[in-house]
Amino acid sequence: MSLQAIIDLVEICARKGVKNAILSPGSRCAPLTIAFARHPQIHTRTVSDERSAAFIALGMAQQLNEPVVLVCTSGSAALNYFPAIAEAYFQEIPLLILTADRPPEWIDQWDGQTIFQANVYGNHIKRFFQFPDSFGTTDQLWHSHRIVNEGINLSQSGPKGPVHINIPLREPFYPKKGEALIPSSRISIFSHEKPLRQLSEATLLELDNELRQYQRILIIPGQQQPNALLQSILEKLVIEKQLVVVADSISNLQGSGSITFHDHWLGNEEFNKNLKPDLVITFGKSLISKPLKLFLRKNEIIHWHIQAHEGVNDTFQQLHRLVECEPLYFLKWLLEKLPQLEKGYFESWQELEQKVQENLPRLLEQAYFGEYQALQTILREIPADSKIQLANSMAVRYVNFLGKRAQEIYCNRGTSGIDGTNSTAVGCCLETSWFVTIITGDLAFFYDRNAFWHNYPTPNLRIILLNNHAGGIFRLIEGPKDQPELEEYFETHQALSAKFISQEYKFDYSLSKNIQELKQALEGFYQASSEPKLLEIESDSTQNAEILKSIKEMISQKLKESQ
Amino acid sequence: MSLQAIIDLVEICARKGVKNAILSPGSRCAPLTIAFARHPQIHTRTVSDERSAAFIALGMAQQLNEPVVLVCTSGSAALNYFPAIAEAYFQEIPLLILTADRPPEWIDQWDGQTIFQANVYGNHIKRFFQFPDSFGTTDQLWHSHRIVNEGINLSQSGPKGPVHINIPLREPFYPKKGEALIPSSRISIFSHEKPLRQLSEATLLELDNELRQYQRILIIPGQQQPNALLQSILEKLVIEKQLVVVADSISNLQGSGSITFHDHWLGNEEFNKNLKPDLVITFGKSLISKPLKLFLRKNEIIHWHIQAHEGVNDTFQQLHRLVECEPLYFLKWLLEKLPQLEKGYFESWQELEQKVQENLPRLLEQAYFGEYQALQTILREIPADSKIQLANSMAVRYVNFLGKRAQEIYCNRGTSGIDGTNSTAVGCCLETSWFVTIITGDLAFFYDRNAFWHNYPTPNLRIILLNNHAGGIFRLIEGPKDQPELEEYFETHQALSAKFISQEYKFDYSLSKNIQELKQALEGFYQASSEPKLLEIESDSTQNAEILKSIKEMISQKLKESQ
Repeated sequence: MSLQAIIDLVEICARKGVKNAILSPGSRCAPLTIAFARHPQIHTRTVSDERSAAFIALGMAQQLNEPVVLVCTSGSAALNYFPAIAEAYFQEIPLLILTADRPPEWIDQWDGQTIFQANVYGNHIKRFFQFPDSFGTTDQLWHSHRIVNEGINLSQSGPKGPVHINIPLREPFYPKKGEALIPSSRISIFSHEKPLRQLSEATLLELDNELRQYQRILIIPGQQQPNALLQSILEKLVIEKQLVVVADSISNLQGSGSITFHDHWLGNEEFNKNLKPDLVITFGKSLISKPLKLFLRKNEIIHWHIQAHEGVNDTFQQLHRLVECEPLYFLKWLLEKLPQLEKGYFESWQELEQKVQENLPRLLEQAYFGEYQALQTILREIPADSKIQLANSMAVRYVNFLGKRAQEIYCNRGTSGIDGTNSTAVGCCLETSWFVTIITGDLAFFYDRNAFWHNYPTPNLRIILLNNHAGGIFRLIEGPKDQPELEEYFETHQALSAKFISQEYKFDYSLSKNIQELKQALEGFYQASSEPKLLEIESDSTQNAEILKSIKEMISQKLKESQ
Repeated sequence: MSLQAIIDLVEICARKGVKNAILSPGSRCAPLTIAFARHPQIHTRTVSDERSAAFIALGMAQQLNEPVVLVCTSGSAALNYFPAIAEAYFQEIPLLILTADRPPEWIDQWDGQTIFQANVYGNHIKRFFQFPDSFGTTDQLWHSHRIVNEGINLSQSGPKGPVHINIPLREPFYPKKGEALIPSSRISIFSHEKPLRQLSEATLLELDNELRQYQRILIIPGQQQPNALLQSILEKLVIEKQLVVVADSISNLQGSGSITFHDHWLGNEEFNKNLKPDLVITFGKSLISKPLKLFLRKNEIIHWHIQAHEGVNDTFQQLHRLVECEPLYFLKWLLEKLPQLEKGYFESWQELEQKVQENLPRLLEQAYFGEYQALQTILREIPADSKIQLANSMAVRYVNFLGKRAQEIYCNRGTSGIDGTNSTAVGCCLETSWFVTIITGDLAFFYDRNAFWHNYPTPNLRIILLNNHAGGIFRLIEGPKDQPELEEYFETHQALSAKFISQEYKFDYSLSKNIQELKQALEGFYQASSEPKLLEIESDSTQNAEILKSIKEMISQKLKESQ
């Protein structure tokens, strides 16, 4: 009967449109494994390291914008999912996590693979459900059906996110040889019809009245998935209304006229005098640019955040309104209602943007070879219709320094962990025919090397590994670089090369230590291939720090000259 | 002032005898990193992958029998610790987990690397403490001192285990250049004097009266660390009193006269008729032998569990007494009070033990080459004064089939996860000059390959990798082997070889595909070397299953003949 509930669970997933499951091998989860593997409408794959499995599922769900199922056995397997679940929670990516468990009477009795799985992910999931562990009455089967419906619905409504169902299972785990798995004749299916998130006439009037007070308005989109409609309306706001849009790379909204080089001047008071806004409108999630955040925290502003659900994140410490509606709806209204803005404000931002754009590429070309120059060179070669997965730490910062990107940009900024980048990109590869380029440092790359430990081809994967044999970021930020512990405890110097891992996983491997080698390696790098390609760029962490500093100084000099 | 509390924290650790810390690189944890790295009495090491870092700390704490400190930055870093923390909790190994955090006002505000760290390990720690986040009064500094004292004390009292202190930190994170770190002049230190866990005269009398009713007594030690005093008293009980001691390899109590081949007959009713006990006395934690557990669950018995703290695990579903005292104290009393036992009971067990001992080695030598034969050959070569770290799944089962071991045996049976074996062994290597041999399958080995991603030499490490390119266990247990999903979803066939990882980490690598190659590879395997050695044994998962089955049948035949 327990097996019947599992067969029904999978059937409900399929009927509600779930199409993918990532399983990890185990004994206790066998009924789930078999029921998913045999369901004709669900594509199941198996990945042994649960930590990678969960990030792979996250990478898939991010592309599909629908829940991907994760199935693991009891015990520490569920704990290895946790980093990706926290990332999915804060990045609002739908996942349905199914953890097999022993029945309650056997928890904490020294039987193998038991931990306390109930509520194990704490506040990092949208909801936890305990699946029934016996099915003596039809109510219990109905309960199990209801849980699955609700779990899938919740993962996709409000802010999307991960939902956890813990499933105690009693033996027998296996159907008899040749036995068909037939769903119950009566299965509850219920959907969740979501509302339009719009505003009342009264609220709109109130916003309209307030809006007329402002003349220096900034729009700042936070991290979000590519969205052509949003991009088009933002471009209209820029072109028709000369509104200032400041867009980090991870916003995927760096359209025409948007400001993208702001990292180069916002940290410097002397360039910012004409830039202070009176109203800041944000939507989407986190920002990369620390100078941008500090600039807005320091100046007294009015901040409206537009979001289609409740829950407040007060990024600039002076939130005035959480406007609960769809950002697209709001921007359409804004386009209509936007008052006359202050003359010259738009130009102040644009001049700085253009100045950096004119100078940065040339300065970098003339610089010593290092990560910064290498990345500029590489980014020019990456096809526009492709996806880039950025690792946290320096990769995502460098790309933000380098301005406007045409490609889709992904980065796990939910928790901003060093873990999971490779696996997320692998998940992305499984759901797109476009090229997927990982841009990563050595720490993030080796951390998640088990991403490639599976049997599914990813010929569209390209890896750019910035190997400075250390956590180079610690040489680039103030503080650690002056400490005697820098090399051993912060940079954690490593002599590793990606050559061996490339041999092991049959990646097409090349190594570049200077710009000539790099240009050669890039020839044909984006030609179709049967195996992934990995390009390792070796540079020196001390020199990278010096280059970054000198480019910053030179850009400041150029900006000063033009004032 | 926040920095002062951190300096004091480290000073308290040192004064209370903590000698080791494993740090993982990060920015938020910098004050902890610097304070630990600079303290002359604490040996700090740095490991980048927090999942491995925590298992390495566990391996060290297991050897030292005292808490090892873990330090990580905020965000998902803490989540990567979780598998090892759950293992430490159930295996009762002391750890002091220090997670850096943002101050509370910045949690969940889209700033990088924040998750909900308070109570994040749920019930898998002995206690959670939130460190103060401001120090405006001396009470707050006293609070921070108290937490550190209590945390260290708790990790070592009652059942030992992990304790978590979450530490919100505000900038500045770094001392000024050249600034010395000086602990407060007034630092609270308090110790915890633990009681003798002995029993009252009345309780002893009650036990004595009951004990006289029993004539067929089994003593079964569960998993525990090597303990010469316990072993010596158990040997006395066997030799002087003819008491039956049934000892799995992980009990580390397979002394003279103990029963160790019980896996070979307890699953078979026809050999068990004379073996049914009336009283079973256990101490220590989990058992490996499933036949032993099932045998005792099936028969009606009286079960006393001896343990120096509260908390009940009813392994055989018929616990009668939890006797809260030190096992050594109890066994001394037992040696004195043990009544006359039934004649022939001891001999019934001994005959079976001897029969297997006479036949198994020869049968295995004559068998086809595979994991079973390879392991018998290898175990004979491993020095007696050495330590073995067994992976879960088949490695620990095979070793248990092969009877008495002189070496110290470790295996992460707290959660019995596939994760963390390599890292635990690395931690062990750092704290012993003896050889440490990992015996592992390919899934466990590749799962935890980041164990070797650090800069600390482990020349005493030896790795026996049983590579059947699959989760071979699923072919060996009933159920999955009859399912069409066996190869893809249970075994998860993998073509990986350890050759590349050996090159990467400079292991002395050899590969054996037959007994001749194996014998050759073993020559000099335990000679001292500057690098670890890895011996990969390739075998076929289908054939391994057949060999296991045929050996089992042949042993049953031999046991039948002798009846």
